[in-house]
Amino acid sequence: MQIVFLGTSAGVPTRSRNVSCVALRLPQRGETWLFDCGEGTQHQVLGSDLKFSQITRIFITHLHGDHLFGLMGLLATCGMAGHAKHISVYGPPGLEDYVRENSSRTEIRFSYPLDVHTVKAGTIFEDEEFRVTCGQLKHRVTTYGYRVEEKDRAGHFDVEKAIAQGVPSGPLYGKLKRGELVTLPDGRVIDGATFCGPKEKGRRVVYCTDTTYCQSAIELSRDADLLIHEATFAQADEELARQSTHSTAEMAARVALAAETKLLIMTHFSPRYMTGNPIEPDQLLREARAIFPHTEMARDFMTFDVPRRDEG
Amino acid sequence: MQIVFLGTSAGVPTRSRNVSCVALRLPQRGETWLFDCGEGTQHQVLGSDLKFSQITRIFITHLHGDHLFGLMGLLATCGMAGHAKHISVYGPPGLEDYVRENSSRTEIRFSYPLDVHTVKAGTIFEDEEFRVTCGQLKHRVTTYGYRVEEKDRAGHFDVEKAIAQGVPSGPLYGKLKRGELVTLPDGRVIDGATFCGPKEKGRRVVYCTDTTYCQSAIELSRDADLLIHEATFAQADEELARQSTHSTAEMAARVALAAETKLLIMTHFSPRYMTGNPIEPDQLLREARAIFPHTEMARDFMTFDVPRRDEG
Repeated sequence: MQIVFLGTSAGVPTRSRNVSCVALRLPQRGETWLFDCGEGTQHQVLGSDLKFSQITRIFITHLHGDHLFGLMGLLATCGMAGHAKHISVYGPPGLEDYVRENSSRTEIRFSYPLDVHTVKAGTIFEDEEFRVTCGQLKHRVTTYGYRVEEKDRAGHFDVEKAIAQGVPSGPLYGKLKRGELVTLPDGRVIDGATFCGPKEKGRRVVYCTDTTYCQSAIELSRDADLLIHEATFAQADEELARQSTHSTAEMAARVALAAETKLLIMTHFSPRYMTGNPIEPDQLLREARAIFPHTEMARDFMTFDVPRRDEG
Repeated sequence: MQIVFLGTSAGVPTRSRNVSCVALRLPQRGETWLFDCGEGTQHQVLGSDLKFSQITRIFITHLHGDHLFGLMGLLATCGMAGHAKHISVYGPPGLEDYVRENSSRTEIRFSYPLDVHTVKAGTIFEDEEFRVTCGQLKHRVTTYGYRVEEKDRAGHFDVEKAIAQGVPSGPLYGKLKRGELVTLPDGRVIDGATFCGPKEKGRRVVYCTDTTYCQSAIELSRDADLLIHEATFAQADEELARQSTHSTAEMAARVALAAETKLLIMTHFSPRYMTGNPIEPDQLLREARAIFPHTEMARDFMTFDVPRRDEG
């Protein structure tokens, strides 16, 4: 699992930060999932080493333009240049109508199956490897945060050991791989766990934006390996954060602390904190780290490999 | 009058060319008018020396995404960061609904007056300095080309000469400036033309995209100082151009020739002709110049000062 930040500015793009998008690369399945899709997301994909053809799922937090206005262009390009196979889009009520209206007005003919899902709090996607859940945040329009959970995987199966002990190949191997007790044709009972390396614990990544400090962000972020949380404002502008239902860096840190996450990466910074202005980005980092030391600030095209929690 | 090309690619952006937008700078009135507004136009404005606050009119040729998907984001940013005073948007039927639906879905609250005008062939804007007309082109959806005509201006008025000849200041100066015959209070009849330098002939700029070769493009472009015309395809792909109702470079040149324009600048190039591919951009330039030698190819951020036709 690798995170690629494609847009880390709030509201408007700047010369160095685009509006919101985070890519989650899943190399094991050759897929990339996007979270939000601000205008220019397809341009950021072009400027990264991500591939349009691998984009399979897009999760939209809310219907503000700086999180949404890149969606139609990206979907069109995935058809024209990206050789998309199937794309699923998830988001709050209104997103289906938005995609339908815009497709109709601009006569986009998608060359691949596209489906749009309206989410509500709970599990919105699940397969053998992943579960995606969402929770409603506290913003001035309906907004969802997303949590991606990788499922635990059995440890490495030692095939050579199984052969050496005379286990016949076939369906028994699957049971041993899952660590089950197995009775062999010759009557021996063997424990699959003795053929398996340590279990690989699944990782958990949470994306919370746009929101002010709220309990549901904490619940969604519980015990995450990585929390990506908005930090639009510095503490000096806390009142602005409250009025606009956004977060200060301190609020983001308090969510990370309360949820006992391993790492916080802040994003969605107001352009007012550009280097050279009265408050510079480093100030937000200091304010967050005073509360939650394991904090970093995202920048466009920053990549982060989510580490496994324990491999022992 | 200065042209700034902000997007010169067809359909999808590339690393070096964004999707369609052309800016027309009018320094004499501190305004910039945009023609088309593909996704990422606001990013291109940020990367140029244009100012959001000077954008007052936006003309949309047709409702395909590569000419339109930057409009809502640009309008939002003009409100948030651009200190816009008033913006008028012009385009084909459906554009008003597009802006209304998107504004409503994404809850944009414009902080400035915004009006959207549905155009039809003819004059769509006129004031003392400019006239803008449009004509329907030949594309698979309703598409308009735009013609901007600067009105002729009286030549420089020689105030010192008027004072030396004892013309009293006041309303008479205005008449003299317009080259009229004026009777002075002392009975003398003087000819305003003798106080004025040569008339400045207004310039004419025409923007035609997307379209295949058609008579109405020729009529709209008649006698223009600058014709900006799409040239999506090379001659080898003429069949593709006809099928998709786009133009080859040769078609663009034939329009410029028939309309007796002074200069043709081609834009809207298919990404298939990137340098290093079997057909390179220079091939399109050669094909056009074989028919109309005064042809150039646009590239992103290229600027062009439209010269006065005659100042003598």
